[in-house]
Amino acid sequence: MLAIHSHPARPTLAVDEAISVRGVVHRLRALRGVAFLHLRLPEALIQVVWEGSLPPGLREQSAVAVSGRCVSARLREAALTHRTLEVRATALEVLSTPSQPMPIDVTKPTLSAGGAAVYDHRALSLRHPRVQAVFRVQQAVLCGFREALFAEGFTEIHSPKLGAEGAEGGAEVFELEYFGRRATLAQSPQLYKELCTGAFLRVFEVGPVFRAEKHATSRHLAEYTSLDLEMGPIASFTEVMAMQVRVLAHTFGRVRQTCGHALELLGASVPEVVCVPAIPFAEAKARIGGSATPDLSPAEEQALCRSVCEETGSELVFVTHYPSSKRPFYTMDVPGSEHETCSFDLLFRGVEITTGGQRIHEREALVAKLAARGMNPDAFAFFHATHGYGLPPHGGLGMGLERLTAQLLGLANIREACLFPRDRSRLTP
Amino acid sequence: MLAIHSHPARPTLAVDEAISVRGVVHRLRALRGVAFLHLRLPEALIQVVWEGSLPPGLREQSAVAVSGRCVSARLREAALTHRTLEVRATALEVLSTPSQPMPIDVTKPTLSAGGAAVYDHRALSLRHPRVQAVFRVQQAVLCGFREALFAEGFTEIHSPKLGAEGAEGGAEVFELEYFGRRATLAQSPQLYKELCTGAFLRVFEVGPVFRAEKHATSRHLAEYTSLDLEMGPIASFTEVMAMQVRVLAHTFGRVRQTCGHALELLGASVPEVVCVPAIPFAEAKARIGGSATPDLSPAEEQALCRSVCEETGSELVFVTHYPSSKRPFYTMDVPGSEHETCSFDLLFRGVEITTGGQRIHEREALVAKLAARGMNPDAFAFFHATHGYGLPPHGGLGMGLERLTAQLLGLANIREACLFPRDRSRLTP
Repeated sequence: MLAIHSHPARPTLAVDEAISVRGVVHRLRALRGVAFLHLRLPEALIQVVWEGSLPPGLREQSAVAVSGRCVSARLREAALTHRTLEVRATALEVLSTPSQPMPIDVTKPTLSAGGAAVYDHRALSLRHPRVQAVFRVQQAVLCGFREALFAEGFTEIHSPKLGAEGAEGGAEVFELEYFGRRATLAQSPQLYKELCTGAFLRVFEVGPVFRAEKHATSRHLAEYTSLDLEMGPIASFTEVMAMQVRVLAHTFGRVRQTCGHALELLGASVPEVVCVPAIPFAEAKARIGGSATPDLSPAEEQALCRSVCEETGSELVFVTHYPSSKRPFYTMDVPGSEHETCSFDLLFRGVEITTGGQRIHEREALVAKLAARGMNPDAFAFFHATHGYGLPPHGGLGMGLERLTAQLLGLANIREACLFPRDRSRLTP
Repeated sequence: MLAIHSHPARPTLAVDEAISVRGVVHRLRALRGVAFLHLRLPEALIQVVWEGSLPPGLREQSAVAVSGRCVSARLREAALTHRTLEVRATALEVLSTPSQPMPIDVTKPTLSAGGAAVYDHRALSLRHPRVQAVFRVQQAVLCGFREALFAEGFTEIHSPKLGAEGAEGGAEVFELEYFGRRATLAQSPQLYKELCTGAFLRVFEVGPVFRAEKHATSRHLAEYTSLDLEMGPIASFTEVMAMQVRVLAHTFGRVRQTCGHALELLGASVPEVVCVPAIPFAEAKARIGGSATPDLSPAEEQALCRSVCEETGSELVFVTHYPSSKRPFYTMDVPGSEHETCSFDLLFRGVEITTGGQRIHEREALVAKLAARGMNPDAFAFFHATHGYGLPPHGGLGMGLERLTAQLLGLANIREACLFPRDRSRLTP
């Protein structure tokens, strides 16, 4: 019987040592008698020097196997976009040959293709080093988020995306047929993460959420990756804000530590998070002379961030105590008030990246709130039944991974931070 | 302006030191003058001894704040289900009070509630230590999977769940309306992870997939968490099998290292993975005197596992070279054969947990295969266009997280390994 063994995967690479790797030709420059290949490897781009005739079928985007000798730094230390490793090749084998040249050029410093072409050919534009750098940073964000929460005793959950009712109970819900019944796609893991606080106390989830956004903007997607956490027992929603600060401090730190070259390539700087100013909603409105609406407009969010950054130097600012009318039914009101909530948003460089707060944990109060909003409490019976059997006082928050990445890197459009964006007009690739 | 600081979260706990924690009362035994509380904390269950009158509102499932002195081991070392930490409480404050007693008993060694009640009251049954142990192990599986793949140079991706066509192009697809068009829910990240091999070379994803399974079985769900990886350039699909062995070896190792008490509680043993036998499909059929069908039935999978385990001691076995008729269109055939594929399944304790293989990476071959199957190549234009611009020879695999967990722990039903299961008849909670 044949047997498949576990054996070490990565060759140890060092200067002057033999090396044998496979990769994809990112760029090919053939001069007289010598060819320079930029080779994409997992997590690195290296240079290969080949002195000899070009093997048939060798093109840009060909997969190749290369043997030779390292003449520079270790591969493991090679940055994604810097050719810190150079290989003098003694053998070069072609493993695949494209049947046509790329319709977009990924070898220039910036992608020259226009907006739609980048996404029409998304599997190709993802090969550009600057685009890869975005996802390198995004991966570090995710790793930092998970590390920070595991260290705080959180359990990672996977809640269902198919359900009977949308968490917010409103519009923007995708509906589908489910074995002869009507089902909806989750707009957020809100209700399930709340239920899980009764069992695991602290939970988080990284997963897709779905919003049937009617309007095309540079900061909305129909499907995005949501970073959610929920924790109990808490004494106040400020504990959730403190958790947010700790998590972002660790996450941003990890990005700075591990993504130096990617940040350099993108011209991005990542702030050190030590303490974040917090302003009540009414005070924030007054500070910027905002309108009398119960929410902050995009322009008001920008004005507030500018104002706070000028005063404190912080690129992050919490806005607290949002009006009840603009927060979902499960939000806890400030005791004795029906207008102010125990809630917050976190703004970063002019854009809201987090929404959070304390939730109602008593069944009677929750059913009353649903009824007061003209919503049908029976539709949420599976939810508030659990409150009756006991949920700890709890709160949490949600962040969009793509929007956070875009703000961190100064990307003009959230789509740049999404592998294969989905919006009103785009369902492929 | 108020400011929210980042400050250390967890108290350092040691015997004879003061402790101040919040948690949920799992079990309450009140004797004359002394009460014993089992308290659920994040990742631990501890005992609290309270000498004094019971505060009003204290019930099982109440959230409480406790101050006192530790009289036993460190909390960080406390197992989920062992009361290795005991606290002599000097203060006990009630933070929430359930309005009614639990309909199922989570304080007995096993859940006494019948099958449906466990899932009707899933948010409550998740409070049982044995149920929590399942998800403790599942989390370790995920951590191990990610760690192993990061170490191998993989990039974590998040592919869209909304698309124009199902990956397998067949039945069992959920459909929905998407801004006036027809869309489908992803049955797998197959096509997207393949496309990403051209950019990142090695990618993996942990995310939900959706199958409109018509039949109710103990090993299928309508929504589950899929662990997928895809890698290129490869020289043979056996490299994917070797990667699978390395990943499982690390993953199972992590479960053994970090989940000792959970495994003990569940009476489960986790095999050491060093080398895994591999048998071609035809040979496997012959070995067990199987039927002439082009697939292995559940009974045949069980018989094969028994036979191989008796001979080699391995609870895992690869079956390779499945017939082409039973594999999806993107599967690469063995060169020179139209009947055998470069593919494999991995069976574990009688059940298939992995499907994988090498994929077609040349456009012409892919379009021909689609046409030969009577499928419309135009419907997959966004997919095979990329093959034309160059994809490395690549392969990968997919595993269901819930099924893997169930097999690892010897659970009778896959639903036990899913937080909130979805099937033909269940859409809530």
